[in-house]
Amino acid sequence: MEFKEITAKDYTIYFESKTYLALETFFKTNSYSTVFILVDSHTKANCLPVFLSKFPLHLDYNVIEIPSGENHKNLETCSKVWQELTRLNADRKSILINIGGGMVTDLGGFVAATFKRGIRFINIPTSLLGMVDASIGGKTGVDFNNLKNQIGLFVNPELLLVDFSYLKTLPKLELHSGLAEVIKYALTYDADLWKSMQENSSFNEKTIQKWIYRSIEIKNEIVLTDPTEQNLRKILNYGHTIGHAIETYFLENDNKENLRHGEAIAIGLIAESYISMQECNFPEKELMALKKVITQLFKKVSFSEKDIESFHELMKHDKKNNNGIILFTLLDTIGNCKINCTVSKELINKSLDFYLK
Amino acid sequence: MEFKEITAKDYTIYFESKTYLALETFFKTNSYSTVFILVDSHTKANCLPVFLSKFPLHLDYNVIEIPSGENHKNLETCSKVWQELTRLNADRKSILINIGGGMVTDLGGFVAATFKRGIRFINIPTSLLGMVDASIGGKTGVDFNNLKNQIGLFVNPELLLVDFSYLKTLPKLELHSGLAEVIKYALTYDADLWKSMQENSSFNEKTIQKWIYRSIEIKNEIVLTDPTEQNLRKILNYGHTIGHAIETYFLENDNKENLRHGEAIAIGLIAESYISMQECNFPEKELMALKKVITQLFKKVSFSEKDIESFHELMKHDKKNNNGIILFTLLDTIGNCKINCTVSKELINKSLDFYLK
Repeated sequence: MEFKEITAKDYTIYFESKTYLALETFFKTNSYSTVFILVDSHTKANCLPVFLSKFPLHLDYNVIEIPSGENHKNLETCSKVWQELTRLNADRKSILINIGGGMVTDLGGFVAATFKRGIRFINIPTSLLGMVDASIGGKTGVDFNNLKNQIGLFVNPELLLVDFSYLKTLPKLELHSGLAEVIKYALTYDADLWKSMQENSSFNEKTIQKWIYRSIEIKNEIVLTDPTEQNLRKILNYGHTIGHAIETYFLENDNKENLRHGEAIAIGLIAESYISMQECNFPEKELMALKKVITQLFKKVSFSEKDIESFHELMKHDKKNNNGIILFTLLDTIGNCKINCTVSKELINKSLDFYLK
Repeated sequence: MEFKEITAKDYTIYFESKTYLALETFFKTNSYSTVFILVDSHTKANCLPVFLSKFPLHLDYNVIEIPSGENHKNLETCSKVWQELTRLNADRKSILINIGGGMVTDLGGFVAATFKRGIRFINIPTSLLGMVDASIGGKTGVDFNNLKNQIGLFVNPELLLVDFSYLKTLPKLELHSGLAEVIKYALTYDADLWKSMQENSSFNEKTIQKWIYRSIEIKNEIVLTDPTEQNLRKILNYGHTIGHAIETYFLENDNKENLRHGEAIAIGLIAESYISMQECNFPEKELMALKKVITQLFKKVSFSEKDIESFHELMKHDKKNNNGIILFTLLDTIGNCKINCTVSKELINKSLDFYLK
């Protein structure tokens, strides 16, 4: 299957072998001074060599390395990158190529957009999650005070290059983590994709590539319609109100194992689908199908009543909130969302009990 | 004299009593959740009471105070404000009102634009420099590693409110510091304004108000034409290539007294006008007139040959640079600039000797 390029706002998303042609054209037709490549310790070892073998850079470039892991997605890491850019005399015509998962593209986009009031950047997502979510739609930023993406801004890359071969560098758990977002697109936007996900429980490579491509199409359609999350884009938050709070809680508690983004969102998807069933008559059959798909992909996570109290506290800082009210995106049926819903604390507790059962 | 409102990109600049009417209308017609007022220790004591007496806020608001002074215009101070906003449950519909000089509006604009990927903000400049320069044109940001405005972005306020009565709260040295920017507008853009500045050496209140208004008109015209500094806007950097380096040097050296922005820019204006005379036949008569006006306003600053070497080092990080080449804006005649000029190190040294003589 050939994956045709997708036109996004101000930039184009290229796939597979076309990505390197697009990059070549970019360097031929744009004036730039210096090239910087941002990687984390994982992508430096596993992805940078792939990139350089496919795209031998016949130009001077500098590699800037940051530690990998969500716990380094913060202003301290930004400061280190800004320091390196300064030390290496980056100027306004410098270009930053972000090679990595969502952590690298989120942080790299923010660092570029704020260095000397903005230099250009290119995103090369190497994780499934990065491909389907983080690197599209212009959301950049870092965590702050343990709150996810609390500091950041909306800004687009010059190019988004999706080469599926980077997925081979991922451990299975990491690959599966990204599928939580694909499930979200299916539930909120595309009944056919949802059908395909239920039917292909072997999760083979070619099928996953098609899902990724379709997810990118969907996300691009949504963000083109509503770039700054006034209405439609809020459907992308499905599963994330509860999911983000859980992710944050496990991240900030030293005695809890960190969850991958997708592992936390998977819990959020089940909980918010349960709430949808109670509040919007979302079909129980779909809820059970969702639970089955997620059980195939993710290990069960346990948490206590006390933990759940902390989730509520963290939800108070959700960026969708308005006047201190926690706002949910819920589902009527597959592909039909209701945004800005309020939900009682009691029902949230019940939905988490449903997950735990 | 009545000062008519000025239409800027996406927002309007109001003057004097109309500022409070505009603010009232803004709060009546915009939906918002919580109001935050950012002040520094000086403007909290001197300007906030003036603001509240003229605009009694019949709504809940929180005041966030930061330390005053350019040496606090950094990411650490940003972090404190982000922390306060988080603690006080600011959400995406919160509004930040920046009341202060350029340090407060630059930092406050950056903090607002990056908090939860952007909340709205209103600028109320209280210094002359803030009125004529910092708060117009969308440049926000903070210093980093002792480099001026190294981290930031272009973003506009919802409203810009200019009430000249805040100028009464300023010490004379601070007021004069802002006039360096007015001189810059006169030299680079408006021969009539330059004439007026030479003729009114008493610098009385009413005259200064007219100069401020004209400076705002000029800056607005320039940034509307070239918002992201591709060409025309570079004329605003006149005097700043050398001036910024000097300001930074005095800021980062503990054994040197800090210079006000305008005090450093005044030196830069003389030096770059001397260079303009040598390179572009800028009239010597105007150079001598400039030296006279600046002598009336600013005390003489001294620096050594070793200091000058450090200025050269700092100029290498100037944001206008391209491929490591330091680019100057120079003048042919009053109101006629040449951008992207290169200048020899020797001539820069000579220009600083000319200042010192």
